[in-house]
Amino acid sequence: MSKTRKTKAKRARPAAKAKGRTTKKSREMAVAATAESMAAKQRAISISEFFAKNRHLLGFDNPRKALLTAVKEAVDNSLDACEEAHILPELVISIKPVTESKFVLTVQDNGPGIVKQQIPNIFARLLYGSKFHSLKMSRGQQGIGISAAGMYGLLTTGEPVQIISRTNPKKNAHHYHVQIDTTKNKPEVVLDEQCDFELSTGTNVTITLEGKYQKGRKSVDEYVAQTAMANPHAAIIYHAPDGSNYEYPRQTKEIPIPPREIKPHPYGVELGLMYKMARDSSAKQLSAFLQNEFSRVSLRVANQICEKAKLRKTLRPSRMSLKQAEALHTAINETKIMAPSTDCIGPIGAEQLEEGLKRVVDADFYTASSRSPAVYRGNPFLIEVALAYGDKSSGGNGDPEKEPLMRLIRIANRVPLLYQQSACAIYKSVLDINWRNYGLSQSRGALPTAHVTLMVHMASVWVPFTSESKEAIAHYPEVVKEIQLAVQECGRKLGMYLRKKKRIQQEMDKRRYIETYLPYIGEALQDILTLKQKQVNTVVSRLKRVLEKSRKI
Amino acid sequence: MSKTRKTKAKRARPAAKAKGRTTKKSREMAVAATAESMAAKQRAISISEFFAKNRHLLGFDNPRKALLTAVKEAVDNSLDACEEAHILPELVISIKPVTESKFVLTVQDNGPGIVKQQIPNIFARLLYGSKFHSLKMSRGQQGIGISAAGMYGLLTTGEPVQIISRTNPKKNAHHYHVQIDTTKNKPEVVLDEQCDFELSTGTNVTITLEGKYQKGRKSVDEYVAQTAMANPHAAIIYHAPDGSNYEYPRQTKEIPIPPREIKPHPYGVELGLMYKMARDSSAKQLSAFLQNEFSRVSLRVANQICEKAKLRKTLRPSRMSLKQAEALHTAINETKIMAPSTDCIGPIGAEQLEEGLKRVVDADFYTASSRSPAVYRGNPFLIEVALAYGDKSSGGNGDPEKEPLMRLIRIANRVPLLYQQSACAIYKSVLDINWRNYGLSQSRGALPTAHVTLMVHMASVWVPFTSESKEAIAHYPEVVKEIQLAVQECGRKLGMYLRKKKRIQQEMDKRRYIETYLPYIGEALQDILTLKQKQVNTVVSRLKRVLEKSRKI
Repeated sequence: MSKTRKTKAKRARPAAKAKGRTTKKSREMAVAATAESMAAKQRAISISEFFAKNRHLLGFDNPRKALLTAVKEAVDNSLDACEEAHILPELVISIKPVTESKFVLTVQDNGPGIVKQQIPNIFARLLYGSKFHSLKMSRGQQGIGISAAGMYGLLTTGEPVQIISRTNPKKNAHHYHVQIDTTKNKPEVVLDEQCDFELSTGTNVTITLEGKYQKGRKSVDEYVAQTAMANPHAAIIYHAPDGSNYEYPRQTKEIPIPPREIKPHPYGVELGLMYKMARDSSAKQLSAFLQNEFSRVSLRVANQICEKAKLRKTLRPSRMSLKQAEALHTAINETKIMAPSTDCIGPIGAEQLEEGLKRVVDADFYTASSRSPAVYRGNPFLIEVALAYGDKSSGGNGDPEKEPLMRLIRIANRVPLLYQQSACAIYKSVLDINWRNYGLSQSRGALPTAHVTLMVHMASVWVPFTSESKEAIAHYPEVVKEIQLAVQECGRKLGMYLRKKKRIQQEMDKRRYIETYLPYIGEALQDILTLKQKQVNTVVSRLKRVLEKSRKI
Repeated sequence: MSKTRKTKAKRARPAAKAKGRTTKKSREMAVAATAESMAAKQRAISISEFFAKNRHLLGFDNPRKALLTAVKEAVDNSLDACEEAHILPELVISIKPVTESKFVLTVQDNGPGIVKQQIPNIFARLLYGSKFHSLKMSRGQQGIGISAAGMYGLLTTGEPVQIISRTNPKKNAHHYHVQIDTTKNKPEVVLDEQCDFELSTGTNVTITLEGKYQKGRKSVDEYVAQTAMANPHAAIIYHAPDGSNYEYPRQTKEIPIPPREIKPHPYGVELGLMYKMARDSSAKQLSAFLQNEFSRVSLRVANQICEKAKLRKTLRPSRMSLKQAEALHTAINETKIMAPSTDCIGPIGAEQLEEGLKRVVDADFYTASSRSPAVYRGNPFLIEVALAYGDKSSGGNGDPEKEPLMRLIRIANRVPLLYQQSACAIYKSVLDINWRNYGLSQSRGALPTAHVTLMVHMASVWVPFTSESKEAIAHYPEVVKEIQLAVQECGRKLGMYLRKKKRIQQEMDKRRYIETYLPYIGEALQDILTLKQKQVNTVVSRLKRVLEKSRKI
């Protein structure tokens, strides 16, 4: 009874509200909303609710990718922590299958450990971290990754994240079980105790999650192999779900030069942002504000800028008007300012990159190139590229003679990117190059077909990923340009190699002709001039020498 | 003096900290971090700081795209508001250039207006909205779009968002200037007054932003045209920055059937999420919990599930253990449950889609297909496709005979998607189809080349976009499969058309042969049988008829 009454009430309303605005068609299904009814529904959304629903943004679209993403986030954190503490990393990655679709992932590192109080926030709160507010090259940057992996584990299996961490060899380790409260984006501590730990300092993270283990190009195995390649200073042991064990010993004892934190470069800081920085600044004078808040602004440059903007050097930044900020912004972009310093970026190095490529690809020809740092939106970045040609194992559906599509290995801040290739600025940049100029064949809108492996590394204080899952680099024009210049340099070297190879091939063909036909010429001369066999041999070998000398190889 | 001392102090520290862990190389540039120093740096990140830095995630990577994204967000909101209030939308979009790189964008609608108290939150706070917590088809879904556009305007020009809104014809309109405080993700009200407004109810939003206006495939012009196509019930007037004016009159007075809000479907709700729902539930019995919280679960189905899971129907959900939840989750996926209801999705309709295509593309052949609703992760969705073949104006670099790559028009919940085509599930699905089966030529890893325009629409209560900028659909296997099935249906029809066309062509060729050679046969017969000219004519015309009859066209 009450149910029918309710329905009636619902039916009655739209007619009254719609006031002839809608068509005659009866609208039994939905009631027309009003500004008031819509206002009543407005509410804040917690960031963890948002990402729980949009988990594909974080790389958890399907079970296979989810497993990879979870490994990646844990490994990124471990490597970053070791590097920050100047420790040569030793990682143990282990994935144990519980059922076919459920795994227990454990990543252990010998890093500095995590302070007890921070553990719940780091592992069970989104948008919490140390790297977001600093301009410095690191793998993690957003404060989302590992807590998102924990949230995904919780959502799919109901199990909390388990952490063991020791920061001091003289003290016990902490053992925590934490889980995220998605409606509030706050951590809940399920277990909190002290325990033993095999390492003097370090962290061990365990996540139980739904996943799928599958070998191949986008597998965890491939990710670990590429990570070892991009991080020759790390020792990695990996226990795969199928029982295989992989060991990647350390290749160099040299820790990458620890990148420095920098201030934003004045180019590329937007008007509104600069205006806000000025309004919030505690500096008393405009000139000091410019020198303190930006990199590469000396007293001389600051004065130049003020002069161009027709503003007093002594203007108090917090009292600046939008008009004045506009003038300042224009002046900055008209003033010549040094490019940002490069020691905030720790490139792998063209040579090491080529070495890395040699370790995984057995090819005929290798080359590498490295650009000097450039800037996008005030952030310095650097592109390095290595190329290998002639790797017969590199695809073509098993047929070594059939030319496969170029294989692209994308790396950002030493982290291999396995997914979303076609959305990536690296892919686009490589696609837009005319590879026919370098002697490769290429269909319209596709990668060139050749036994080529191309590795591109972008190192930056802030890699502009297309999504939080950090799988593809956004198409900033400056980034695309630098990638193209670096790749083209390798392309030119490849072209030279291929042309030379072709020339040698032609030369060889010609030489073969000479060798084939010279004896006949000899015979003919013998007949015509009635020479002895010995004379013929002399003439022929002389002729051969002369003919060969007349060309250069 | 003090400077050198400082430097010395800095140099002294790393050696002390590193304790032989690092290589001998002196590390003057950075001090090794400890667990404590790292903990001190940890802090929460506001969601607006996050998106200000990651603005490319929201579609603001470059000035051209930023202009488009801002228009899109404002238009999405206007159309959604009108639809919810059952109002036939009348939109005026105007973009006025201030300088070459700065524009004033205004979007005005005749919707229900926005309640005064909500204006600051809606336009200057991220993750605030009415659509996130309801499962219902709408253009906006995240509560980010318009406030992000406002934030981008503020960042690039320093100007606040201006809003005029009237909810009641008898009252004055409100006039607000609001801007976001990015460090807190809170709105700041700069101006708050009453004013006149030309419409009885409606909203007028003005954003000043840095942008770039450029015509072409990814332009605002194209977006507005495609929006008009996908929303035949909306009247749109568009004043472009170059002074051109476009008017898209309403094509139908029928408002799309307003989609209903639904509950999640039990299939695809993950274990952890279901466990949390159960623990949070106020239902007293398991059976009631299942019926209340999920769609398509009747008493009978609920009992079936409980039986399969070997759980009491009367179990209190909030006391459920993880083990029990696991059993329940398995049981749900083993129970046959009806597909979700379809009235929560408002498709455009295959016929209307084909009509829409006819309006923009002048082709020889049109076809369309529509799938029945399917489910991904518990969310119902539906795919519709329309295809046009033979549009000679569709590219090929101006040469109408040169076959261009297929043109793909992607639409999600009636919103055209112009960017990130190659990252989109629609692109991938179309790419993975073997178009040679349907008579088109196609290179490896590329779209087919043909004068074909393909329009794909995904309608869903929750479109899984690859990023908040809502430019590409994520690769959920269920979505890819449905797109492929729908496109293949159109492909088959195209194949039939092309085969028939080819057959007709061959027939015509044969007929031409007959017509060419019959007279000679006639002459030959005349010679052999000595017939009169009249007899020859009769024989020839009979022969012709017989030959033609013997084939079918």
